[in-house]
Amino acid sequence: MSALPFNDDLKLFAYMREHLYAAVLCDALDQAGYRQQAMRADIRPIYPDAVVVGRAVTMQSVDVYQPEENAYEHEIAAVDSLKPGDVMVASTQQSTRTCVWGELLSTASMVRGANGAIIDGYTRDVRLIQQMGFPLFSTGIYPVDSAGRGQVIDYNCTVNCGDVVVSPGDVIFGDSDGVVVIPKDALRAVVEQAVAKVEGENITREELRKGLTLRDVFNKYGVL
Amino acid sequence: MSALPFNDDLKLFAYMREHLYAAVLCDALDQAGYRQQAMRADIRPIYPDAVVVGRAVTMQSVDVYQPEENAYEHEIAAVDSLKPGDVMVASTQQSTRTCVWGELLSTASMVRGANGAIIDGYTRDVRLIQQMGFPLFSTGIYPVDSAGRGQVIDYNCTVNCGDVVVSPGDVIFGDSDGVVVIPKDALRAVVEQAVAKVEGENITREELRKGLTLRDVFNKYGVL
Amino acid sequence: MSALPFNDDLKLFAYMREHLYAAVLCDALDQAGYRQQAMRADIRPIYPDAVVVGRAVTMQSVDVYQPEENAYEHEIAAVDSLKPGDVMVASTQQSTRTCVWGELLSTASMVRGANGAIIDGYTRDVRLIQQMGFPLFSTGIYPVDSAGRGQVIDYNCTVNCGDVVVSPGDVIFGDSDGVVVIPKDALRAVVEQAVAKVEGENITREELRKGLTLRDVFNKYGVL
Amino acid sequence: MSALPFNDDLKLFAYMREHLYAAVLCDALDQAGYRQQAMRADIRPIYPDAVVVGRAVTMQSVDVYQPEENAYEHEIAAVDSLKPGDVMVASTQQSTRTCVWGELLSTASMVRGANGAIIDGYTRDVRLIQQMGFPLFSTGIYPVDSAGRGQVIDYNCTVNCGDVVVSPGDVIFGDSDGVVVIPKDALRAVVEQAVAKVEGENITREELRKGLTLRDVFNKYGVL
Amino acid sequence: MSALPFNDDLKLFAYMREHLYAAVLCDALDQAGYRQQAMRADIRPIYPDAVVVGRAVTMQSVDVYQPEENAYEHEIAAVDSLKPGDVMVASTQQSTRTCVWGELLSTASMVRGANGAIIDGYTRDVRLIQQMGFPLFSTGIYPVDSAGRGQVIDYNCTVNCGDVVVSPGDVIFGDSDGVVVIPKDALRAVVEQAVAKVEGENITREELRKGLTLRDVFNKYGVL
Amino acid sequence: MSALPFNDDLKLFAYMREHLYAAVLCDALDQAGYRQQAMRADIRPIYPDAVVVGRAVTMQSVDVYQPEENAYEHEIAAVDSLKPGDVMVASTQQSTRTCVWGELLSTASMVRGANGAIIDGYTRDVRLIQQMGFPLFSTGIYPVDSAGRGQVIDYNCTVNCGDVVVSPGDVIFGDSDGVVVIPKDALRAVVEQAVAKVEGENITREELRKGLTLRDVFNKYGVL
Repeated sequence: MSALPFNDDLKLFAYMREHLYAAVLCDALDQAGYRQQAMRADIRPIYPDAVVVGRAVTMQSVDVYQPEENAYEHEIAAVDSLKPGDVMVASTQQSTRTCVWGELLSTASMVRGANGAIIDGYTRDVRLIQQMGFPLFSTGIYPVDSAGRGQVIDYNCTVNCGDVVVSPGDVIFGDSDGVVVIPKDALRAVVEQAVAKVEGENITREELRKGLTLRDVFNKYGVL
Repeated sequence: MSALPFNDDLKLFAYMREHLYAAVLCDALDQAGYRQQAMRADIRPIYPDAVVVGRAVTMQSVDVYQPEENAYEHEIAAVDSLKPGDVMVASTQQSTRTCVWGELLSTASMVRGANGAIIDGYTRDVRLIQQMGFPLFSTGIYPVDSAGRGQVIDYNCTVNCGDVVVSPGDVIFGDSDGVVVIPKDALRAVVEQAVAKVEGENITREELRKGLTLRDVFNKYGVL
Repeated sequence: MSALPFNDDLKLFAYMREHLYAAVLCDALDQAGYRQQAMRADIRPIYPDAVVVGRAVTMQSVDVYQPEENAYEHEIAAVDSLKPGDVMVASTQQSTRTCVWGELLSTASMVRGANGAIIDGYTRDVRLIQQMGFPLFSTGIYPVDSAGRGQVIDYNCTVNCGDVVVSPGDVIFGDSDGVVVIPKDALRAVVEQAVAKVEGENITREELRKGLTLRDVFNKYGVL
Repeated sequence: MSALPFNDDLKLFAYMREHLYAAVLCDALDQAGYRQQAMRADIRPIYPDAVVVGRAVTMQSVDVYQPEENAYEHEIAAVDSLKPGDVMVASTQQSTRTCVWGELLSTASMVRGANGAIIDGYTRDVRLIQQMGFPLFSTGIYPVDSAGRGQVIDYNCTVNCGDVVVSPGDVIFGDSDGVVVIPKDALRAVVEQAVAKVEGENITREELRKGLTLRDVFNKYGVL
Repeated sequence: MSALPFNDDLKLFAYMREHLYAAVLCDALDQAGYRQQAMRADIRPIYPDAVVVGRAVTMQSVDVYQPEENAYEHEIAAVDSLKPGDVMVASTQQSTRTCVWGELLSTASMVRGANGAIIDGYTRDVRLIQQMGFPLFSTGIYPVDSAGRGQVIDYNCTVNCGDVVVSPGDVIFGDSDGVVVIPKDALRAVVEQAVAKVEGENITREELRKGLTLRDVFNKYGVL
Repeated sequence: MSALPFNDDLKLFAYMREHLYAAVLCDALDQAGYRQQAMRADIRPIYPDAVVVGRAVTMQSVDVYQPEENAYEHEIAAVDSLKPGDVMVASTQQSTRTCVWGELLSTASMVRGANGAIIDGYTRDVRLIQQMGFPLFSTGIYPVDSAGRGQVIDYNCTVNCGDVVVSPGDVIFGDSDGVVVIPKDALRAVVEQAVAKVEGENITREELRKGLTLRDVFNKYGVL
């Protein structure tokens, strides 16, 4: 495990994507004392096998009721700032009025090397985005444009996304079980713990398949 | 675009189905000043690639708590009134108690040439309806019968479906992004605007793929 | 129909799985006077074609806010008690805090011959559980562990699952339309009625396909 | 207790109003096997000391989205049918769009001798109604008129009010703890049981005031 | 009625406060074609007999998750801009996290001559504010400070308050039935219509008290 | 301030009750770094001027669906354990099914010297409890008994009440603005800070009344 590429983000994210999953990272976060790191269960992938891992770039959208001048200024700057391995994390304060993401922003993000996006709010253009293979998580799908409905007021600020507070640079991992946030300072400890836990679960599973009861397995290994 | 078949509903709906989508129609409705035309985000297709376009025939269901005489009178009349190109739009006042639609009504509708149905409420028999290829949108799936739970009290009245007020004859367009309602008098203007917008987006997408930033694209074309 | 294997649970469940579905069982329950037997519409299969039928073994989870001693005692006992043909039915009082089910419990249940599980609450490890072909229904997906979040306090007690009161030994049937609960004493009457109703619907469907209106069909057969 | 005036509705209701309260009637309903008779907790009196007791006259309102012909026909007939000792029970399917009750209907009801009204929905004119001393319970207060928003479609039908199914002639009791519904056939048994329970509670309360622990009292009287 | 002081805001507001009420203004708005002008029913006065009437000054608050620089800049400017006869209208996008109003802001507003405040969100210090006699309407009461929880990002912008879009200068009327918004251009027509309607209702009420049925009254006057 | 009676709970609680309030304690908790200590805004006093301060004794109730043996065991033990200055804090996992508190439990608690109760759930007998002057906070009022609906499964465990995690011995303060929880180890720091803040606010209020703008006051004192 000493070989884990903690000094190369892109390699580390590729390793995590292949060997880890949201549930085991959540358990490792628990053990490190971070117990509020799973986003609300209504933030779901737009296609079933979407997996996203990367560093958070954040943005905050707020509902508006008339078109504003320079409405796209922060949103454009946020997307243009994306670097390889980044994941856009957008908060809308759970708006059901606007749609903060769509196909053109996904295209612009992919061209810049971003690994995906998490929206605590609605997206549109989901068929096209699925065809592009851009892993996108959102609370729902809605066909409206953001003009006169929502506006990005800041980016790379601390945001609330799915009831988890996310700071820029935190590491995001999302798969079919949901999205977890790894605080940047805890990354190494959490990933190492998760790798160890995957190995333990493989042993437990084998024992159960051999016919041991849960009681037997729990008594033997002290875990479930 | 002058060739768009505005004098032949069935040809126009086929054209729209092939070339347009809910999000771009929503933008065109915005530009025409209709900004409340997207149904609530919880009205979803029962299978992912369902697309529906057609003229609204409406019906209104209300919860009941005992079997009523002639309970099916309005519902039967509504379905039997369907003509080719029609779309059934049913409101239940967001009931979580009844199920206003199912396989037999879908079969009867298809036989009459209807293009689909939108239910602000629950449906059942979803596997069979998916197999029939009948594009059905609903807020959920529930196995109960309507008898003693809900009753259609009127049809071809103005209804609220997904927080949009729908009048008979309005044009419905639903796809993976949701359902929008085009007021009948605005149909020509909205469709022409949508066709033009699709062409503009194709250009923008090409520019992004070539590596232009969002800022570059926005400065050049003034749209996003 | 006299050949229905009411004296052999496993054969009866296999017959029901092949020939019946949730909606027709719901109608049969209605006719037998059981009108509150469909679970809330937000209890959904984790993969679209999951079908579950079997006898209920129940357990009750409650939210906790600190790790408890012997936290897994009742949960382990419940799973270890499963016999062939059983279905685990777990209530969490609609918790959005914990995750009462996952892959290891699914593995242990399958090894014991259980036919599936119904969770009024969240599950995790959904990709692995889908790959195992274990039919699991839940209100959502969430990656957290239950330790310090929820605890099973009793099993084989009467529970509320999806707003239906379920007693141990009731028969569960779940498919793409939802989950229904057949009280154990009503099993024979309900299944026989459902089989008869399936035959009636086949006739109605054929008439509709031949072009009869709903009004014609309703006048002729008195059912819809 | 043999003197309870069960053959004179108005005297019985006056007795109940003076000596009983909703919580003790709820306990008596429980003991008689009626366990779903308390309306949802969001149906509240519009002034704190409102108490209502009487026979239910029911009406059902449904949301509409355009003015209807003869919109007031059923509502007028329902109010004009009220007799001394009646209580209007109105269901709106929990509408947040319309306002089914107000000062003029309260005035008309009082003139006819009605004892109050229960609205599963909104009311308006609450200051005037409070000044009249008309005991009114509702889910909220909203200043809109019903025209083009809601319409009464039937009266003296079975309705759902606050998640309790109410039939015409059931007895309604509402006070600061909420509203309970006594099925007409259970009236005598429930009232007699409630009177006995009030006497028991008076004894228990005295014992507690003397300093006995709850454990002492429970062991001595077997009730809490 | 020609004597209504439409050229003197303060006198007009005093007249409206004495002679009109929210419900009758709502009816007059309906007749003028404004049918979405009543705020959601959960915006309630903090004391029962609060009445507010005046010109809207608006502000928009958005949730934040860390203390911001110059956090109070827009809020201070908004309150300091209040003139006699103004009413503060604050939107928080229905935040349950922050508290945008309290006693010190009420004191500052009253000193400037403001007539009250409407908060689509929480307030605190309600006992003190009630003692001051400052008519305040809110969705709830919560003791937290806004620092690090919410921030006013703009004022005198168009806002959504209680699902009504409010522009600066619109006239606000709130009483025990709720809050309505009169678009500034409709003020004269709406107030004149409301005054006429109050007179009509007085006649209807007298007729009902004389014992006419609702049917009689409706047939005679054509209104309810 | 050195005279604050930190070594005598009952005197300290009396001092706090007279001189402090929930909002200022919430600000002091913020400054001490405790930012999640205000209970959800739907936990309200059952009468407007109820004030409660004291040490938490906790209990956890869970919904049940059939009468249980020894159903009252933990509840009786919890109430009988109350000592002077204690406050009962009961969690029901936001049940809308049961009623965990009532007049007899209030009487038993007062006899033992308890200062009040906080229920994250429903209570009944509110008129009697108000007459007793027992400060009770709850999420609602509902007339049902707990038998067969809810059961206390543990007491003096860590519970979630109103989305705040409460441990036995934490200090509770509730008034018309809501309920805050002071962790036992932070009591001295928080109370001293609150006392200082009350003095600061008195000065600010005087300045505003003299006509200073908010901007003047903020520049002068740096607080709002």
